[in-house]
Formats: sequence, C-alpha cells, structure tokens
Amino acid sequence: MGETRLDIARIRGARGVIDPVFLGSPLYRCEGLGARLGCVVSVKLETANPVRSFKARGTEVVASLLADSGARAVVCASAGNLGQALAWSGRGRGIEVTVVASRFAPSVKLDRIRALGARLELVDGDFDMARERAAAIASYDGIRLVEDSLDIETCEGAATIGLELVDAVPSFDAVLIALGGGALATGVGHVVKALAPGVEVICVQPLGAPAMTRSWRRRRVVTTDSTHTIADGVAGRRPIPAVLDDLLLVADDAVLVQETSIITGMRMLLDHAGLVVEPSAALGVAAILEDRERFAGRHVVTIVCGGNVDMDAYHRWVGPTPGRPS
Amino acid sequence: MGETRLDIARIRGARGVIDPVFLGSPLYRCEGLGARLGCVVSVKLETANPVRSFKARGTEVVASLLADSGARAVVCASAGNLGQALAWSGRGRGIEVTVVASRFAPSVKLDRIRALGARLELVDGDFDMARERAAAIASYDGIRLVEDSLDIETCEGAATIGLELVDAVPSFDAVLIALGGGALATGVGHVVKALAPGVEVICVQPLGAPAMTRSWRRRRVVTTDSTHTIADGVAGRRPIPAVLDDLLLVADDAVLVQETSIITGMRMLLDHAGLVVEPSAALGVAAILEDRERFAGRHVVTIVCGGNVDMDAYHRWVGPTPGRPS
Repeated sequence: MGETRLDIARIRGARGVIDPVFLGSPLYRCEGLGARLGCVVSVKLETANPVRSFKARGTEVVASLLADSGARAVVCASAGNLGQALAWSGRGRGIEVTVVASRFAPSVKLDRIRALGARLELVDGDFDMARERAAAIASYDGIRLVEDSLDIETCEGAATIGLELVDAVPSFDAVLIALGGGALATGVGHVVKALAPGVEVICVQPLGAPAMTRSWRRRRVVTTDSTHTIADGVAGRRPIPAVLDDLLLVADDAVLVQETSIITGMRMLLDHAGLVVEPSAALGVAAILEDRERFAGRHVVTIVCGGNVDMDAYHRWVGPTPGRPS
Repeated sequence: MGETRLDIARIRGARGVIDPVFLGSPLYRCEGLGARLGCVVSVKLETANPVRSFKARGTEVVASLLADSGARAVVCASAGNLGQALAWSGRGRGIEVTVVASRFAPSVKLDRIRALGARLELVDGDFDMARERAAAIASYDGIRLVEDSLDIETCEGAATIGLELVDAVPSFDAVLIALGGGALATGVGHVVKALAPGVEVICVQPLGAPAMTRSWRRRRVVTTDSTHTIADGVAGRRPIPAVLDDLLLVADDAVLVQETSIITGMRMLLDHAGLVVEPSAALGVAAILEDRERFAGRHVVTIVCGGNVDMDAYHRWVGPTPGRPS
C-alpha cells in the first residue's frame, strides 16, 4: 500500500478522544442473512448509538480538537448524518454548531439535527450546493469548516471501525463499505490494508450516484450533473481529489448497485437480521445480491453505517407485501 | 439486601466464559424516545448478537461448565429464546442440544432453534407443559436439564448485564426489567442492589401473564391457569419458589401492563429508536407509558431483551397506519 493521508498511530490515538458510546460497536454473524446470501455474513452495526450512524466517531475527534483550541463555533455541510453527529459532539463541549443541508434531505435527519441543538440552514439544492454554502459561512464568520472525508479527523474517526474489524476473531475475507464522500472507505480501507492486507476492501455505491466509483475506475476525478438514488447518505456529485488519491491506494474494488437491490437489501436486513437501516447501510447486501458467485462461501463483513430513515418512506420501500416470506 | 442465591464474584467470573460477542452490548440514550416519554431513556440493547436476545449470556455459562465436565448432551424447555441460545452455545462446544417448546411459540423462534442445529421437540401445550416434558427427557436420557431462572448459571449470565449497567456513566435512577421466569430480573436486580443500591429496580410483566408479579406482591407463589399476552417470552404460569425468594430481595416494584401499551411501546421503539423488538422487550416502555408521572424527568434504563419476532405478526401489531407520525 502506498502512503495515504492516514496513519495507524493517529487512528489508535483517536480512540482516546471518542466518547466510548460510539466505540466497540456490535460485530456479529447473521446466520439467517448468510444462509439466504450463500456466504457467511457478519454485520458491523453502527446504528446502536445516540446518533444512529458511524459519523460521530469522526465528529468526536473534530470537536475534541476544537475544544482544546478554544473554538466556540463550527459549521459543516451534511447529507444528514454528519450534521447530527457534529451537533451531538459540539453540544457536549459547548461549541455552537451550524449545519447546512439540502432541503430535500430526509426530514427525520433534519429534525434530529435541530433537536440536537444545532442551527440548521437549508439550501434549495443538493449536498454539493450545501458544501458551497457551508464554506461561505465559514469564511464569513471566520469559523472552522468541517469537510467530511477531506478533513483527516473525519477519516481517522471512521478508521477506528477498521481497528475493531481487524481485531475480530475469526478473521474475514472481505469488507463491504458504503462509498459516499469516502471517509468511511478510506478510513476503514487504510486500516484493513495496513493490518490485514489479505482482506478484500470493496466499496459500494448506487448506480444513481456513481461519481466516486467512476473516479476510482478512471483514476481521476469524474463528476456528475445529478444523482438519482434513495441512498441519500452517499449521493455526492463531486469527489474530492485528495480523498480519491487515498481511495486508489486502499480499495481493491468499487462496485455500483441498482436501486432495487438496495431495497431488497434493506428488506433482507429487516426480515433476517431484525435491523432497520437507511438505504446507504444496505449497499453491502445489495452488492452480494448482485454478484452471489463472487462471495459464495466467503466470510464477508458489511458495515451497517446508519439507521436514520424516514419511517414512512421505509414502510413504502420495505413494508409488508402480500406473500412476502417472514 | 438479604442473601440471594447470586454472588458478585461469581458473576464477574462468568464474564470470563461468555463469548465476547454477547458482552458489552450497546447502552445509549435515545433522545427521541425520551422526549416523547417525558424522561431520559437509555436503552441496553441485547438484540445485536447472533441469537438476538440476552439469553446466551446464561447458556454460555451453562455450556462452558458442561463442556468442562465432559457432558455431551443437554435439554431445556424454552419459550423460544433460551432454546436458540443453548443451541448456539452447545454447537460451539460439541454438545448435543434438545429443546422442548410449545407448538404455539412463534415459528421464527422454532425455525431458528432448528437452524442452529438443535433437536426440537414440540408439545401441544404451553411453556409450563414444555418444562414438564423437558424434565422427563432429562430423566429418561440421564442428561442435564437446564431450567431457566432456577439454574444459577442462567441468572449469573443475565446478571452480567447488571455489571455493565452499574459501570455506566452517567448513572441512572431506575432500571426497567422484563419479568418472566425471573433470571433477568433477579440477576440484574442483584447486581444493581449490591453495587448501586440507589437505583430503583422495577420489574414489568403483562397483565395477561401476571403470575410472578402477583407472587411478588403476595410474597408467596401464585400460579395462574392460563396466559393471554403477545409477549410470548414472559408468558409463564408457575413461578419457581427459589426465584421468587430472590426476586423478593432485589425488586423494588413489579408492575403489570396492558397489551395495548406493549404494542405502543414496540411502535415507539421502532419510530423513535429504529429498533425492531419482540413484545417482551417493549415492556419497559409500556410501563413508562402507563405511569408517566412516576418517571417524569428521571433517567431510566430499559433493557431491550430480545428481537426475535415473527415479522408478519410484527407488521400487524405496529405496521403503518394512516396518519401515524414518523
């Protein structure tokens, strides 16, 4: 592996500043799910915490450093989960948090950002427009802009998941990682490639939001004009060059999956693992569904990265249909 | 606290023989749930493991001792969760497991007992009839009968949850515990009363299966002729005297809740915590719903003890209804 921006010692150190409620998340084999997918499936569950996603691992590192430096305010753009996490981490440290999000983000995510005490500003556009607005606020107010996946703390926080994976017994053959901005994939990927290089690192993105995957395949940034996916958590159009550089060093593959597979994945996680997840968290199962032969008989870990989902939409997607086996 | 059958040193020791996948389960504050219940609610989540209930903490202790003694077979009666847990714990140690259950137990529980490799025998009656049949098998085959709540290992295993609770920061005011046979309540109750005596230990049982609660109130065993509740995991008719004796020493209160409250509790856990739980696991929330004043402003931990629920039944109970707020 070439030199990414990440460093194992710093990642180990990050664990010391992250509230333990976000660490040591469950990692366990789901036999019912595996039986139906034809492989051994273990779940790394990042939804059983106060913000229901892995994002607080990173915002804890960010907020801890900000608090140490005496900062009083911070701003970020968010598809919905980073905002909740930064709001949580900032609140506990007396830091005023502003979150910029798309007005089309799931209302449940926006409501929870507000409920956690952050100031929420909505833009009439998508996540990449929210990024521009957040940068403008940071510049105008002279406060720290947290850029997910670009800021190394967000990658280091996510990477602590990797440490928990490589410590797992028994070891596994592949890890499936939702690919959005890239913090989760580069963070976990770095640790896995450094400490368990035999494990295949596979990133998964929706066909309807393929910018980072296309960029990885062409080894240069490829942007798209729009996104069309229910997986709101990973729907970016403009990959960050430095993050792509890291991803090129740690990912063994990046695959694109269809929306129907994401929905089937969500349904299988409900029916056979008892888990309510947001679409992004079902990308790994979707990838197995679309290429069963590739994973047959192997031990695959899928990171269930978030559970913030609008329940009405959820019921529409995976709700009971006549004759569906329970 | 008087002398129960439990012992803190033995409970600490039990942690050493339980597979770590069952230990250190998530404990976190659910702000959305708390906001709607008018108190601070933390969840101790016992569903994110290979058998989706807390029961394996106890069966790991049982099976570990059995394996040390060279035993090759074991039998238990089960409402459905103990059987899965014993099947899991026995399988890993080369112990043949027989489970006796009611043919009216949720099919998903029976299917998973079989899938885990146990021999499943069904009786045409309820859990207490299964107990009789299991005892007969043990006697006839000359093998160990595991009696949930009576056998001290099952209580010690459950009690390890208590150790994780009292280590929590910040501390809490009350713990709500589903009451069935009593292993969970006496185990957790013993640890809480020994190490955090200021915390109120409140047991919760369905009005439709009130035998142990009535026994606790009258301080003597009271049996019932039948049970009528969807909370299949706690539907016993014949409390065990030794377990009642322990419960009398550790429980501050035992309350009964209505079926409608259990269903509302399941729905709230889904809508506001993203958790799919079996009815027994919603008893704590049901207790808060039925007595909001009692818990107003306090920090309450509810143990979400199991998530093995038939999805068709689940959808019937909590499925989308027009106008239900998400």
